[in-house]
Amino acid sequence: MKKPIILVTNDDGISAPGIRTLIAVMKEIGTVVVVAPDSPQSAMGHAITINSTLHLNKISIENAEIMEYSCSGTPVDCVKIAVNEVLKQKPDLCVSGINHGSNSSINVIYSGTMSAAVEAGIEGIPAIGFSLCDYDWNADFETFKPHIKKITLEVLEKGLPNGVVLNVNLPKRKQEDLKGIKICRQANAMWVEKFDKRVSPFGKEYYWLSGEFVNNDKGEDTDEWALENGYISIVPVQFDLTAHHAIQQLNTWNFNR
Amino acid sequence: MKKPIILVTNDDGISAPGIRTLIAVMKEIGTVVVVAPDSPQSAMGHAITINSTLHLNKISIENAEIMEYSCSGTPVDCVKIAVNEVLKQKPDLCVSGINHGSNSSINVIYSGTMSAAVEAGIEGIPAIGFSLCDYDWNADFETFKPHIKKITLEVLEKGLPNGVVLNVNLPKRKQEDLKGIKICRQANAMWVEKFDKRVSPFGKEYYWLSGEFVNNDKGEDTDEWALENGYISIVPVQFDLTAHHAIQQLNTWNFNR
Repeated sequence: MKKPIILVTNDDGISAPGIRTLIAVMKEIGTVVVVAPDSPQSAMGHAITINSTLHLNKISIENAEIMEYSCSGTPVDCVKIAVNEVLKQKPDLCVSGINHGSNSSINVIYSGTMSAAVEAGIEGIPAIGFSLCDYDWNADFETFKPHIKKITLEVLEKGLPNGVVLNVNLPKRKQEDLKGIKICRQANAMWVEKFDKRVSPFGKEYYWLSGEFVNNDKGEDTDEWALENGYISIVPVQFDLTAHHAIQQLNTWNFNR
Repeated sequence: MKKPIILVTNDDGISAPGIRTLIAVMKEIGTVVVVAPDSPQSAMGHAITINSTLHLNKISIENAEIMEYSCSGTPVDCVKIAVNEVLKQKPDLCVSGINHGSNSSINVIYSGTMSAAVEAGIEGIPAIGFSLCDYDWNADFETFKPHIKKITLEVLEKGLPNGVVLNVNLPKRKQEDLKGIKICRQANAMWVEKFDKRVSPFGKEYYWLSGEFVNNDKGEDTDEWALENGYISIVPVQFDLTAHHAIQQLNTWNFNR
């Protein structure tokens, strides 16, 4: 069988331990091409660069075996430029991550990692975002290599449903404490913001955004439940944002008052 | 009846003609508070500012009647800081726009305007994003004032379904050519990218992202169809991205190979 071409990207930047682990796994499966941000791009959501220029640099971090490019843009920019300028064709798969930190529940909306996967999905490329629920730069990614490989092989073999990409979150657990893999829905949770107000040396007020993650969704079919209970969570994510169930109700409204 | 508190934001920046029109309409309906980016933030998607500081400045563009703040962050930052630091309570409604340019179809994903509305929705605030399919800075926003007012009053009266915000797009048409308002689904369209490769005065290659919008979805229930045929399109948008229809299929997969 021909080796699949696998595009690897992330949002923590091309030198982050998470993407280096993902590259190592993908090298066992296919021909790897890396196009990733030259600096951290966390929480960039589905941002793209339209009001400034993009730079692309061929680099070699580990060895000459794989093509690697750093890009000055966002994760979504990386996917677009990879497909159009680096590969000049669609890869067989796009994987994004491994993110340093959770992208479960509502975090999928803010996540650059998942937006890269969603962008690939929009372009018709099977795509998976991987995130580890551990913000530590030196987190234990090693444990998850076999699981990431299994999930990736399954996606390559079966293909994904149209308009769907996978959001895979890995719980901060040791190998022996991992319970398995669960297909989940996105938990209905949110961030409750707190702004930390400070004063600059020049007397000007400024803010740092911080917040607390609050999950009031107690469903046992959610990604949050799975992760808390030692499972790897997989949420199928779509980019048709239409709330189809609401269309009928809105059609009863009177907009001609 | 008590006047509703209405938060107004956008992604083109606080001085854009689109937001000034939206403010004028909202002043007829409620007590208006504006928190909008101090500079253009188009295509920022659901980006938030976590690695740098945020600045908030009280300004007065038109008159002293309304509270106006410019913010150094993204549209989503504006909503978060408005609720937490400016209003210190949830407004009765959040409106975003009027965007200079379409946010129909897949554009909803890239749009800062719609991400601001989605952020408000996540926080439990009824929210509407308005966009005009005309990129001209001096586009005719005036025509749409009565329609924006009607839609807003209907949302305030009826309330929105849980987890749903509205994506309203206005066709570039004269009053007499407007056909009405249609509730739609998001058309299955996409951007086909083209990168414009250039060389800097110093011999370094760089790129501009451009592209062509391609709609192969011929459904007459889509926002694209409505706009092309002279209707104002309203798509109910959700932020539960779970592809619920795919869960059963994924549960048949074998992740334990």
